[in-house]
Amino acid sequence: MRFARLGPAGSEIPVAIDTDGEVLDLRSITGDISGPFLASDPVAAVQHARAVGDLPVLDGAEAGSLRRGAPIARPGKVVCIGLNYRDHAAETGAEIPTEPIVFMKDPMTVIGPDDEVLVPRGSTKTDWEVELAVVIGTTARYCESEDEAATHIAGYAIANDVSEREFQLERGGQWDKGKSCETFNPLGPWLVTPSSLQEAGLDPGALALRLTVNGEVRQDGTTADMIFRPAEIIRYLSQFMVLYPGDVISTGTPAGVALAGHAPYLRPGDVVELTADGLGTQRQTVGSA
Amino acid sequence: MRFARLGPAGSEIPVAIDTDGEVLDLRSITGDISGPFLASDPVAAVQHARAVGDLPVLDGAEAGSLRRGAPIARPGKVVCIGLNYRDHAAETGAEIPTEPIVFMKDPMTVIGPDDEVLVPRGSTKTDWEVELAVVIGTTARYCESEDEAATHIAGYAIANDVSEREFQLERGGQWDKGKSCETFNPLGPWLVTPSSLQEAGLDPGALALRLTVNGEVRQDGTTADMIFRPAEIIRYLSQFMVLYPGDVISTGTPAGVALAGHAPYLRPGDVVELTADGLGTQRQTVGSA
Repeated sequence: MRFARLGPAGSEIPVAIDTDGEVLDLRSITGDISGPFLASDPVAAVQHARAVGDLPVLDGAEAGSLRRGAPIARPGKVVCIGLNYRDHAAETGAEIPTEPIVFMKDPMTVIGPDDEVLVPRGSTKTDWEVELAVVIGTTARYCESEDEAATHIAGYAIANDVSEREFQLERGGQWDKGKSCETFNPLGPWLVTPSSLQEAGLDPGALALRLTVNGEVRQDGTTADMIFRPAEIIRYLSQFMVLYPGDVISTGTPAGVALAGHAPYLRPGDVVELTADGLGTQRQTVGSA
Repeated sequence: MRFARLGPAGSEIPVAIDTDGEVLDLRSITGDISGPFLASDPVAAVQHARAVGDLPVLDGAEAGSLRRGAPIARPGKVVCIGLNYRDHAAETGAEIPTEPIVFMKDPMTVIGPDDEVLVPRGSTKTDWEVELAVVIGTTARYCESEDEAATHIAGYAIANDVSEREFQLERGGQWDKGKSCETFNPLGPWLVTPSSLQEAGLDPGALALRLTVNGEVRQDGTTADMIFRPAEIIRYLSQFMVLYPGDVISTGTPAGVALAGHAPYLRPGDVVELTADGLGTQRQTVGSA
């Protein structure tokens, strides 16, 4: 099952998309795709409501006429893992991390997968990062194993961890400053449950990730090249912070960012497209703040 | 006017405290002290409701029998400024920053001013930081001046920016990992409006901050020693991220933290007390996660 939120920003309709591609309006069972909904066994809730005929098909959804929002309402936090692909660490001249590098984005940077991304005022180094995002379903605190950690995953989504490299690296020591600019976190279009991914024959540990700018391939990687896998990341993070339902973890990016020097940074008018096996596509036009 | 939230964690009652010390129950005008309430001219709303007799005095509040919560409901983000006092930069061996150092805490770390602070599992370097916190009242985006930035301040509060130094500094490069452990952000007891502070003859640029552990003074500073003042910090941050109503900015700590090597780190059973001119007191006992 896939979850999504469709409609104008701020008034998205929560939906579930079944294996037939039918888009089911969830408003009879939840106000939004949010932490409390994810924590309440949402797949079972949807299956039950559907069995008793409570979930109408959403008008207009299959025609693609509705804006696609981020697949979850505002997360409590967005935690990111830095330099988690060997090829990306190498291209930026960094050493391979011996344990996950952790930073945060302002949760209010989360936007829909096709919303406009804004180059900040004064920016000349706005960069892209296609990533596998993991959404937390149940509270994770001091997980003792990767197996336990994996039980806290509600699902997966594509994230663009947009980054301003001058702000991140040349303006005073900590990365967060270049990661939290307005619109810097396109997320979605879908939240895909682990079982749905498995039913599609896909392994979150071996998903192709691809990003193009104006049709030219910039990133073409696979999650198989991750240094730390999602369940290990959750186990690790849960030793340092509590992960709550609806929190988002962006698990790092493969090689091919502008920072590596082989392609220009983003400029207004550029079009960025992202795909990941089983997780859909994103398409952002770039504007100015 | 001061705002506060009184009662059990998760079901605090929003109150205003007037200059006579009367504690007024705000439930007839707002569900909580939150971003939307702060953005809606809350002082005028309270004055109007009081004038027409809509605000009863809260039973039991003056006797101090109610738990004191953080003075705002869960913030959207908590942004922190590092090394913002010359004496603290010096004691940690760091250079004086030429522009603000910015990092973030998980907003879910915010707890009441007297709630238990937990030493994380495996921690031997849990440290304190008394700080002046600024709460945002209206959206701040690309502020052009400090004067404009100052108009976005809803009020001030005491924060304890609890920090695990090994997690922060010895575990992989970015500070956030040591700043977001469970319970690491006691906040309050009050949100004091700028006009209320001024009426009390106090200047946010010259407030004494003091912190003791088991009765021994560890920090005894003043916001007059800040490198970057609150309005300048808001102006600066607004170039990199949008600040929304209810967001919290912790503006740095003066000298005297355990990291400097003159006092032991926190251990279960310790009692930490914090004060700031005009902003009240905090008292935390230390426990184990």
